[in-house]
Amino acid sequence: MTKLAITLGDPSGIGPEIVAATLDAADDLRKSCVVFGDPGVLARAGLRSDVDIRAVTRLAPDDAPPGRPTPAGAAAQVAYLEAAVAAARAGEVAALVTAPISKKQVASVGFAFPGHTEFLAERFGARGHPVEHAMMLAGPTMRVVLATIHVALADVPKILSADAVARAVFLGGQALVTRLGVAKPRIGVLGLNPHAGEAGMFGDEEARLVAPGIAAGRARLAAAGIGASVATVDGPLVPDAAYRRPYDLFVALYHDQGLIPIKLVDFDLAVNVTLGLPIVRTSPDHGVAYDIAGKGTARKESFDAALRLASDMSGLSSVLR
Amino acid sequence: MTKLAITLGDPSGIGPEIVAATLDAADDLRKSCVVFGDPGVLARAGLRSDVDIRAVTRLAPDDAPPGRPTPAGAAAQVAYLEAAVAAARAGEVAALVTAPISKKQVASVGFAFPGHTEFLAERFGARGHPVEHAMMLAGPTMRVVLATIHVALADVPKILSADAVARAVFLGGQALVTRLGVAKPRIGVLGLNPHAGEAGMFGDEEARLVAPGIAAGRARLAAAGIGASVATVDGPLVPDAAYRRPYDLFVALYHDQGLIPIKLVDFDLAVNVTLGLPIVRTSPDHGVAYDIAGKGTARKESFDAALRLASDMSGLSSVLR
Repeated sequence: MTKLAITLGDPSGIGPEIVAATLDAADDLRKSCVVFGDPGVLARAGLRSDVDIRAVTRLAPDDAPPGRPTPAGAAAQVAYLEAAVAAARAGEVAALVTAPISKKQVASVGFAFPGHTEFLAERFGARGHPVEHAMMLAGPTMRVVLATIHVALADVPKILSADAVARAVFLGGQALVTRLGVAKPRIGVLGLNPHAGEAGMFGDEEARLVAPGIAAGRARLAAAGIGASVATVDGPLVPDAAYRRPYDLFVALYHDQGLIPIKLVDFDLAVNVTLGLPIVRTSPDHGVAYDIAGKGTARKESFDAALRLASDMSGLSSVLR
Repeated sequence: MTKLAITLGDPSGIGPEIVAATLDAADDLRKSCVVFGDPGVLARAGLRSDVDIRAVTRLAPDDAPPGRPTPAGAAAQVAYLEAAVAAARAGEVAALVTAPISKKQVASVGFAFPGHTEFLAERFGARGHPVEHAMMLAGPTMRVVLATIHVALADVPKILSADAVARAVFLGGQALVTRLGVAKPRIGVLGLNPHAGEAGMFGDEEARLVAPGIAAGRARLAAAGIGASVATVDGPLVPDAAYRRPYDLFVALYHDQGLIPIKLVDFDLAVNVTLGLPIVRTSPDHGVAYDIAGKGTARKESFDAALRLASDMSGLSSVLR
């Protein structure tokens, strides 16, 4: 049976306690989950319920003290991911929910990726060819997919391309129809510049990149059977007015153009979704938070939302209900 | 007696009808107002109440038909502004509330400014030296001041400077204390890059420009008698997390970093305020809207909010109450 995989993340971060708290409360989902992690770490983090744990590590308490990262913990968080990917490639996993890793810690043991997303795109791709992917944030009131992600603002106009816009439109529209149950999605693509450039007065990227990207995105959707009678794609929209309009999905051209509004309205219930992978992948929108790890104050709502969205998107929820 | 001046804007836009509707409803403020405009245009726009009108033009109906801009109307909207500025320089005006002009129309009669703000900064400055100014958006739940305004996103990192950050901090903090009745303002300055650059991984403007600008802004406030015991200035803040924190004023580094969040939470009640001028100046956050002009559907809420904020900021409200 395919399962919802959970990776435990940095064992010295808040991952273990939010995974434990989420699973202890998730009577409806617990039986479908498998945790790639460490039974002792989970027990010490307070896990009380009966959970399927793949024991990738068996760390002693001193090897993973809450709030104090260790070399053993650095290696462990990478091992949890590798084990989950192997299980996914073997068809045992329909969805992956990742607790936070520490970029600094994993870099110290040779993990050569900016984050989970790039790692997974590489692992699920052919050698040297990462899977085409995009990052979506999905909250109770808003969904946003990004055309560019972790780059300096000065580099956004340099790396933004019609292809990147088309990819975000296509992967986002496809996910709405095939994974999120939106029968007739309305997609709004933002412009790059103030007032969407005001007819070229403040920048020409709208005409040069965004409009062609929208057209190419529509064509890719149509080629996948999602034609104009199913999905509508509007834009380039004036960025400061767009978010008040009723779109099922916004395509933002840079990180903060998308994350500022969704974090304002959906707080920590905005779930990070990697589109384009052969499995569903979600994660909470927070980091390892060493400063509060082990203190019992970390809130599980974000991880719980990520787990539930993964369940919905992978179709496991309908099996369970 | 000093008055609240209103300029009528493009007589073929929605300015006349929203000015008329606002003044007809504003029993508490009407007597303090003077409209630089056209009595016939206002009458045809539905004005019923007794209002002090400075008749800068007397346009025939065909010279200013709603929804259809004319050369006479183009010249008129500039003339209203020049008359209001002259009255302000003569000490007759404490505050100015501007109905929308058409950038295209005023350009056709030689108005060489991107908008009201730059025009007023020039008119109130010494020859060739516009008044130092900044644009603030103030709504019921949020206030934002911008360090850069109407420029292409690609140009923001090129023109952003520590001076621009310091100016926004200073003019914004000064306005809070002296005009807006915030005794101990908390000011939050955003970073430019995702995660505020994540310690230089995605851009270095936070360390190179924003932090020095914050320090200089604090120094300018202190030199004006607003020291650290009065105003606190924090930053550079992570942009996608900043807006959930309780600041009295945010300093945004580019147009959409400030306007996306405030328009999302304060809708059309966000009033545009020009800081730094010798008079208070506010305006509604919408344009001439030729498509609905004369149809009686234009909403006056935004103009009404601009008029009330101008009254509060200029101290005329306390005289009236």
